[in-house]
Amino acid sequence: MHEIPFEEILQRLLDLKANRVLIQTPEGLKGEAQALADFLERNGIEAIISGDINYGACDPADTEAKRLGCGALIHLGHSYMALHLEVPTLFVPAFAKVDVVPALERNIEEIKKLGKKIALVTTTQHIHQLERARTFLEENGFEVLVGKGDSRVSWPGQVLGCNFSAARVNADGVLFIGAGYFHPIGLAISTRKPTLAVNPYSGDAIWMDKEAERLIRKRWAQIAKAMDAERFGVITSTKKGQLRLAEAKRVVKLLREHGKYAKLIAMNHISYPALEGFDFDAYVVVACPRVPIDDYENWRKPVLTPREVEILLGLRDDYEFDEILGVERKEDEPPGISVKGL
Amino acid sequence: MHEIPFEEILQRLLDLKANRVLIQTPEGLKGEAQALADFLERNGIEAIISGDINYGACDPADTEAKRLGCGALIHLGHSYMALHLEVPTLFVPAFAKVDVVPALERNIEEIKKLGKKIALVTTTQHIHQLERARTFLEENGFEVLVGKGDSRVSWPGQVLGCNFSAARVNADGVLFIGAGYFHPIGLAISTRKPTLAVNPYSGDAIWMDKEAERLIRKRWAQIAKAMDAERFGVITSTKKGQLRLAEAKRVVKLLREHGKYAKLIAMNHISYPALEGFDFDAYVVVACPRVPIDDYENWRKPVLTPREVEILLGLRDDYEFDEILGVERKEDEPPGISVKGL
Repeated sequence: MHEIPFEEILQRLLDLKANRVLIQTPEGLKGEAQALADFLERNGIEAIISGDINYGACDPADTEAKRLGCGALIHLGHSYMALHLEVPTLFVPAFAKVDVVPALERNIEEIKKLGKKIALVTTTQHIHQLERARTFLEENGFEVLVGKGDSRVSWPGQVLGCNFSAARVNADGVLFIGAGYFHPIGLAISTRKPTLAVNPYSGDAIWMDKEAERLIRKRWAQIAKAMDAERFGVITSTKKGQLRLAEAKRVVKLLREHGKYAKLIAMNHISYPALEGFDFDAYVVVACPRVPIDDYENWRKPVLTPREVEILLGLRDDYEFDEILGVERKEDEPPGISVKGL
Repeated sequence: MHEIPFEEILQRLLDLKANRVLIQTPEGLKGEAQALADFLERNGIEAIISGDINYGACDPADTEAKRLGCGALIHLGHSYMALHLEVPTLFVPAFAKVDVVPALERNIEEIKKLGKKIALVTTTQHIHQLERARTFLEENGFEVLVGKGDSRVSWPGQVLGCNFSAARVNADGVLFIGAGYFHPIGLAISTRKPTLAVNPYSGDAIWMDKEAERLIRKRWAQIAKAMDAERFGVITSTKKGQLRLAEAKRVVKLLREHGKYAKLIAMNHISYPALEGFDFDAYVVVACPRVPIDDYENWRKPVLTPREVEILLGLRDDYEFDEILGVERKEDEPPGISVKGL
């Protein structure tokens, strides 16, 4: 269960004089999105729910909201990302109703294996408990480092699937609080430090290092598979926060300089079946870095990140995670709703 | 094979001073789109190919082109549809290199069964041969009626999967020239007249009436399946030419007036899996009318058109195809490339 502040959202919409609103939600909050739509309509605001799958703040539906004549967009489940927005947008992080300290307590002996100086990171869902976690860890003798992160994130210690800037501190190891492998495996590859993921729901702790090694081996296999490729489709995204056109053009240029055929492709939802009709031997995804990493088994052709292309062309020896980095972040967002855009 | 006028496209782009262009294509022209991108880049214009699946002129990628910094959009395979476009857009119909007369000649005895007065219609691919077909038919004693059509189409006699306005003439039967069931089955249901589809590639002729009856029976079964539904998701599209918000709101109002729970949903690519997380008993698609008609077997819940909701609520007895109609069309487009937008 998550805390979605219905009354506060209503008040913000009344302040914005928004009579019609679009609600955008990740998969896990669809029920809450529907309940929010019901609540807003009982209070006189016309609510449209976006049925499109949303993976992050990198893909705000502000253009769609504008097209539908909405006075505002409600973006559930993710914090603000610095992007140009075409309607006022309420970023409503969904804070999980779970205490993170018991899981830390239970796994304190494992956490000690990280070393004395630990980088503490988490996702939006648990960021409101980061200070509680830090205090608990300090009381247990750790030196806790919480990195500021760049402009892709909203708070110190926050990580995204594509951005681990908040983990870039001078620590012995990385402690991630949250569920699943998605974020901590990226952390382990990006930081190259011992990484422990403590799950506040299950109370489990998982070391990510072996998983990270296994994933890197799979990536080397993808690179090997692309060795004979002559024709490359270089894919960027039309999602505002994944539109890395300059980087995509750099990759096209690199490939061409090395005698390859390369062509720019733009897609909204990047998946292999839509590409079947084109004549390419391999693809490079210069959009969400997780598409090639997490979805490559669904592709009939090799699919690489820009860093992996550099390895392929002999321009780099070491494996590096493809992150989307921001610029310096000026200030933290408020701990709840952020209203951004026009 | 299709005729795509590469040189003329280049000239139009030079006239528009477009240094970068987005190429959008239906599945069947992906190879041609890639060849066009190669050709334009050899001539100094940066070309990006859209990898997203495109089903019609109702879904122009002009917003995406603008976001990618393109000076123009090339929309392959469909003729112009009256929409507000954010960049100059070249609508490039792809005329099929196939003579339609031999197939008509071969099936003249079947065509005679339509009656003496026949409505002649086709799709963009064969529209350039409509006059040839008309002459042939007139020489064989038919009175040939070619309806003007409304503002959704570009030429007299042209039909879309969602618009059969050009078939609305005082004829005994409808003669469709083209491949597949997609257009003629819609024609048969929409006009309720004997409909013969003559395929210029295979030379075959297929009567659509039995197919249409079978489809209507399946639609009645969908309506029956939705009889006990209390909670309806009413889906409209964020695609510019499928955004039927007023009609969607009318359906929501109708359902609520009849004691049902109804909620507005907006989607770009409408497919069932993305809706799994919501709590609805049935859906109404007020976007592309072909989604419920052609894709309903992939939905775990009943999915209806607006007309079918009227039947469900007892407001209508007869089955009617859900068309997206336009307004009066002022003039025909040129027989080749149309440049529209800003």
